[in-house]
Amino acid sequence: MSRDAALAELQALLGPRLSRSAGDLADHGRNETWFAPMPPDAVAFPETTAEVSALVAICARHGLPVIGWGTGTSLEGHAIALHGGVSADFSRMNRVIEVRPGDLQAVVQPGLTREGLNTELRATGLMFPIDPGANASLGGMAATRASGTTAVRYGTMRDNVMALEVVLADGRVIRTGSGARKSASGYDLTGLFVGSEGTLGLITELTLKLHGQPEAITAAVCAFDTFEAAVDTVMATIQMGIPMARIEFVDETTAAIFNAQNGTRLPEKPHLMVEFHGSATSAAEDAQRFGEVVADMGGAHFDWATTVEDRNRLWKMRHGAYPACIASRPGCMGLVTDICVPMSQLAKAVAETRADIAASGLPGPILGHVGDGNFHAILLVERGNDDELKTAKALARRMAERALGLGGTMTGEHGVGMGKKDLMAMEHGEAWEVMARIKRALDPDGILNPGKLVEVAQ
Amino acid sequence: MSRDAALAELQALLGPRLSRSAGDLADHGRNETWFAPMPPDAVAFPETTAEVSALVAICARHGLPVIGWGTGTSLEGHAIALHGGVSADFSRMNRVIEVRPGDLQAVVQPGLTREGLNTELRATGLMFPIDPGANASLGGMAATRASGTTAVRYGTMRDNVMALEVVLADGRVIRTGSGARKSASGYDLTGLFVGSEGTLGLITELTLKLHGQPEAITAAVCAFDTFEAAVDTVMATIQMGIPMARIEFVDETTAAIFNAQNGTRLPEKPHLMVEFHGSATSAAEDAQRFGEVVADMGGAHFDWATTVEDRNRLWKMRHGAYPACIASRPGCMGLVTDICVPMSQLAKAVAETRADIAASGLPGPILGHVGDGNFHAILLVERGNDDELKTAKALARRMAERALGLGGTMTGEHGVGMGKKDLMAMEHGEAWEVMARIKRALDPDGILNPGKLVEVAQ
Repeated sequence: MSRDAALAELQALLGPRLSRSAGDLADHGRNETWFAPMPPDAVAFPETTAEVSALVAICARHGLPVIGWGTGTSLEGHAIALHGGVSADFSRMNRVIEVRPGDLQAVVQPGLTREGLNTELRATGLMFPIDPGANASLGGMAATRASGTTAVRYGTMRDNVMALEVVLADGRVIRTGSGARKSASGYDLTGLFVGSEGTLGLITELTLKLHGQPEAITAAVCAFDTFEAAVDTVMATIQMGIPMARIEFVDETTAAIFNAQNGTRLPEKPHLMVEFHGSATSAAEDAQRFGEVVADMGGAHFDWATTVEDRNRLWKMRHGAYPACIASRPGCMGLVTDICVPMSQLAKAVAETRADIAASGLPGPILGHVGDGNFHAILLVERGNDDELKTAKALARRMAERALGLGGTMTGEHGVGMGKKDLMAMEHGEAWEVMARIKRALDPDGILNPGKLVEVAQ
Repeated sequence: MSRDAALAELQALLGPRLSRSAGDLADHGRNETWFAPMPPDAVAFPETTAEVSALVAICARHGLPVIGWGTGTSLEGHAIALHGGVSADFSRMNRVIEVRPGDLQAVVQPGLTREGLNTELRATGLMFPIDPGANASLGGMAATRASGTTAVRYGTMRDNVMALEVVLADGRVIRTGSGARKSASGYDLTGLFVGSEGTLGLITELTLKLHGQPEAITAAVCAFDTFEAAVDTVMATIQMGIPMARIEFVDETTAAIFNAQNGTRLPEKPHLMVEFHGSATSAAEDAQRFGEVVADMGGAHFDWATTVEDRNRLWKMRHGAYPACIASRPGCMGLVTDICVPMSQLAKAVAETRADIAASGLPGPILGHVGDGNFHAILLVERGNDDELKTAKALARRMAERALGLGGTMTGEHGVGMGKKDLMAMEHGEAWEVMARIKRALDPDGILNPGKLVEVAQ
């Protein structure tokens, strides 16, 4: 590798849009959780697919790593520059290229954020519902197979990316998928790139599935005496086929943190936060049937968020859980981890995780997208306290092992990145080696986000 | 390759379950459409994953092709033995391994058919809705990414296969996916094998997503004066967000064939056949709103199938369209082809296809799953008439080109197989070469269903 020669060529390509300033390097080496900063050698701000292609071709020729960068909100160290190289920051490729209302589709650039897209869609009656909490870039959301609160109704990025433009490891540009709602035409390359965490190609354009803004929305928050009653409520609701748009669990610790940080007066008990989308009739019917389930399970303090403002406040509080938890323990950082289990195993997974966290002595609120069997623990670790970090890592590892033992997956939505790579063999066995074979086939020199997701001998 | 040595080893492995009888070879070389029969050298009837693994390992050692066989109902020559080899018939691996009602999942063997699974599920309140018409094997449906009438509501096999056990080209066995409803843990290998048409591995076990049997079902058939009015009705219904469980278009030619073959008295006009699933309230509301759209579009002869028997008759007629069309022209065979376009392009695609077929002089009924933008032409070709076959092939090719020109895909559900391989470069460009790279990475000697879907230099 000749780093300096590569950087000189990149400078010639991008001019001032190749930055080596200390601020830019630091910004693109950071992460939102516990990983040590690892800055790249340079940050590129491409403006076109052609520039991304040229950039990758230069890096390929010199063996310099290329790491895609959206908003830096991933939680497993996906975008930090483990082996240096160029951080390709997509913030200047953030346009809506086309909205096709008749096809319920939007074509966008990868640097556009989900909130940015929804702002553009406001007048169309359409929306892009995938909501991981952070105002992440859509390219990053696709690359990490993001999901979030609405996945129980609308699916994950896997279900909502119809087509991609991708720059391959040698700089070639391909298109995957089409504008058709389904296809039986060859391998599902779109599905392969979604969730590949920047290790197989760089996404330069996405065709996304849009959904009609619901005619009516009802939302509520309700408290339970035990987390088992809350989880049983979720399972019964799913069994009855009541179509929830969101259903979130927060434990009593999180409720207490909301009260302290947001001035709410929630009972310090396990809660469910729910939302129903539909026609006025169906949303009301769904809410009523859900209310009956809650009553059967002994739930109480059932508050309907009847206005848009109430609803926004509810979900803002939910999405603010991570910073609120961090703020609840001064001087701490979060090791936030997630698992996803089959629905029938959810109560057991939560119970064992609660007990394990309690025994560790670390503060660790639990919350999550329980309609998918997916939940998070936010382990609050004192900065600089290596013992606590070690304890938290061990807890996270046991959560992942627990998920696998229960027939689930070690991550429902946070992904692999650096944080869970050492668990991949345990989850996938020889299938992990198949992933490595695919990686070698598409990126033989290993320049795309090296050190993440797969293990490839260099 | 030493074919005889391989077959001797396979005989030792499987005993009488390796057949070289003329009847078995002919059965496994046939297809339901126009491809010339191409029998394998032997037919294997494995009973366990271990046997499939051993079978593939033997074939790998000798370079003998292996082709998976479900029910032989594919329409693009997927399962015929282009280069000879062993047809691995999964009919003896047809058990339901486990139903997990609490998780809405079933674990099944690949030879089980969709009707077989639904029979087993009858008492559980659950169902597996994917319905390509034929009573296909679930392994075959996964391998070809099948969909059908209900995809507009429940998705395709892509959306309903959660996990797989797969025998790789060297005989190794891997597991992909998990029992969790979502995962961000690595490349989506499940999605890669679904739709790979037996070219990357043999599926030996599937975990499928189940759905609750709807509390209420309403169904109807209605006629329109023009196909444009029918297509506009579909688009308006989708735009209004009315959740259809099925919506099928049949043209006036098909309606006439139904009358002649089934004794029905449908007006000889374009029709829509629809079904709504939900609670009693929501299914009734959906049906009513749909009725209003139909009335607005000038639709008439609106018949509700109110009883289960009426409904079964309706869908039996729809699913019997292919044999009914074949029977309508004595001595003919069908070249049946499908395309899928963005919804906004559906009316144009149907109009141009109708005109093209009319100009050709061939009988060619059009029907399909229009809620997905997917439709079929059943081109009725006199057996042995090479001119007609050539005409039909040219029509099919122009349909595919039309779909691509309109931003769609050359096949929504029939797949690639042999029939559409020569169109892959046109649809996918360099992405087809990426598929070939994946094929080479997973099956370097090219023994898995060679000659289908991808082009790999041997």
